[in-house]
Amino acid sequence: MTSIVAANFAKFGKREEDIFSLSREAALPVTRKYGKDVDFLVVSNSYSGEFNEISGLNNLITTHLSMDSVPSVRVDNTSGSGGSAVLVARALIDSGEAERVLVLGVEKMTGYPTKNSTRIIASLLPPEERAGGLSLPSLAAFMTRTYMNEFSPSRESIAGVAVKNHHNGSLNPYAHFQSEVTLDKVMNSKVIADPLRIFEFCPVSDGAVSMLLTSDSESESFTGRPVRILATGAASGTSSITFRNSLVAIDAVKESSAKVFRKASMTPKDVDVAELHDMASILEIVESEDVGFFGKGEGWKALETGETEIGAELPINTSGGLNSKGHPIGASGVAQSAEIYLQLSGQAGRRQVKNPEIGFSLSMAGFGNNATSILYGVVP
Amino acid sequence: MTSIVAANFAKFGKREEDIFSLSREAALPVTRKYGKDVDFLVVSNSYSGEFNEISGLNNLITTHLSMDSVPSVRVDNTSGSGGSAVLVARALIDSGEAERVLVLGVEKMTGYPTKNSTRIIASLLPPEERAGGLSLPSLAAFMTRTYMNEFSPSRESIAGVAVKNHHNGSLNPYAHFQSEVTLDKVMNSKVIADPLRIFEFCPVSDGAVSMLLTSDSESESFTGRPVRILATGAASGTSSITFRNSLVAIDAVKESSAKVFRKASMTPKDVDVAELHDMASILEIVESEDVGFFGKGEGWKALETGETEIGAELPINTSGGLNSKGHPIGASGVAQSAEIYLQLSGQAGRRQVKNPEIGFSLSMAGFGNNATSILYGVVP
Repeated sequence: MTSIVAANFAKFGKREEDIFSLSREAALPVTRKYGKDVDFLVVSNSYSGEFNEISGLNNLITTHLSMDSVPSVRVDNTSGSGGSAVLVARALIDSGEAERVLVLGVEKMTGYPTKNSTRIIASLLPPEERAGGLSLPSLAAFMTRTYMNEFSPSRESIAGVAVKNHHNGSLNPYAHFQSEVTLDKVMNSKVIADPLRIFEFCPVSDGAVSMLLTSDSESESFTGRPVRILATGAASGTSSITFRNSLVAIDAVKESSAKVFRKASMTPKDVDVAELHDMASILEIVESEDVGFFGKGEGWKALETGETEIGAELPINTSGGLNSKGHPIGASGVAQSAEIYLQLSGQAGRRQVKNPEIGFSLSMAGFGNNATSILYGVVP
Repeated sequence: MTSIVAANFAKFGKREEDIFSLSREAALPVTRKYGKDVDFLVVSNSYSGEFNEISGLNNLITTHLSMDSVPSVRVDNTSGSGGSAVLVARALIDSGEAERVLVLGVEKMTGYPTKNSTRIIASLLPPEERAGGLSLPSLAAFMTRTYMNEFSPSRESIAGVAVKNHHNGSLNPYAHFQSEVTLDKVMNSKVIADPLRIFEFCPVSDGAVSMLLTSDSESESFTGRPVRILATGAASGTSSITFRNSLVAIDAVKESSAKVFRKASMTPKDVDVAELHDMASILEIVESEDVGFFGKGEGWKALETGETEIGAELPINTSGGLNSKGHPIGASGVAQSAEIYLQLSGQAGRRQVKNPEIGFSLSMAGFGNNATSILYGVVP
């Protein structure tokens, strides 16, 4: 069994620093305290080659962290890299290959023209669909239209994801956006992919986050409040949108989530706090259904009742989510795990949920090309 | 415990096919036979973004292999990606996260100007040393000169690595080069980084290789001749050449190798067949010392005595090595494991070593920035 015993952020946002400085800012507070004990570094990063003209990033980072002999690897799964990295780190510990793994999620995206970065990120779509003009924002728009046709949600409930998550982000000192937005402002903001507006999409962000994982047996020598990883599970969906069963459900999310609840002998009802992959507002709603928190076509109602707000029954994206915290690709999934760690260990500050015991995160690659679900629990 | 139960190659070389076709060619013979049982795909690849303008490669490959729901991840460690991928795949099985993992190593490098690919690969060096004009070939030249000064090997013994490995490659139907070279031809070929000649470097290659790993307990339901992974171990060295202790020894190789021999309670003398990372001729010699096969400064003598040839005491790079088999970056380390699998299971054809029981592979990132050592054994 593996536990999380420490986490630290370099603030997400438009940062002047390079990828190495961001990595140091996130990792050094952890490695200064525990560095000599770390025996594996897992770097979660997707695009250092494309955005930063750097390859072998993980090995350069060990040098920057003065961890020269510590073995390292880069794990990539585009937007879902972080979940995969945590899954791999846990497997390294549970298999006995390593005892203390530092997981570092980092991406440096700004300083590169947004038009180019959108093109590069779209390179995860099948070449033939990319050639047809599909992009991730346009897929989110298709999903929104289909969802609206099939389930007749209020348009405001979908935009409400951005309102809720911007509120949460305003309580998170590491979030890209530090201000709330009103529903009016979201609904009247620039259209990016009709009907979705700019506030409903995650921004392009730089950022980094580090997390120390150890074997469960020694976790309490690091902290009085370790958080155990109860189960990890991953699944893919076809990357070809044309061949999907549905535009309003994501098979990879369903399968990976069913897997972790089965492994941990739990149900979605057991979860006290969750981080979902809200690259676009509609995704939080669709995923909240596919994870099993709500019935299909019912997820939007939670945005009207407030059920997923901090203080309510099932807070979702207390960190601000990708929508407000930002989405430095390789860092996002690690940041989700770090947020659950902070929540379950009672270190989430102004956005703290009251005494959560079970947490859940969903890290997704592409538009459901792959998903990693993780369940976490307070060590009794 | 994890075993290798199948392996298959797409021929290395200058190929007309794209990265997906190469992946299918390598994987389909394995997945057609066992595909429904595979529950994780680990793709070893470094440069699909830079060379092929593709991200999320692993998820696109699951679609190409009709393994749409199988979770997948890309593991990158530049030239050492393959060793890292096998280490991760084994951890997934030994930890219980997966039961049957397909490891696919693939890189499509030709069709991209060599000048550009050398620049891209050099992006694994620290930016300040890269700016100073260092490249991987120039580092190999520095290593050669220093080795010659310190240990006075015959120049011919170093070039002999290319002669031996081209001979071995001529016996391997999947090798990039299919012909022998004479010592004269090597010594009179074009100088790439003085004193090293073009035949002493690996070529730029396309290629792919797939390997199926399963838990030990069920390996015999797949094949009568499974090969067990006895131990994996990884270590890093500083990526900054300026700060290395020595130019003729590689700390990461020493540490990762000491680790696996310790874990398996074995010594280098137990090894019957080995694959080393001979990106340049000198590297096979230096690594053969750092792994512990020969004393420091003694490795070159094996090229004069023939001790590392097929049929002799310790055959090294029976596959042809990177030098003759080729070096499609992400595929190379997986191909090393696959060669040891073929040797230990008696399927290596004309290059078969007589009844080997213990195999060893060394997969290296950059110029010793990271190394993964793996020990393999015949299941009794």
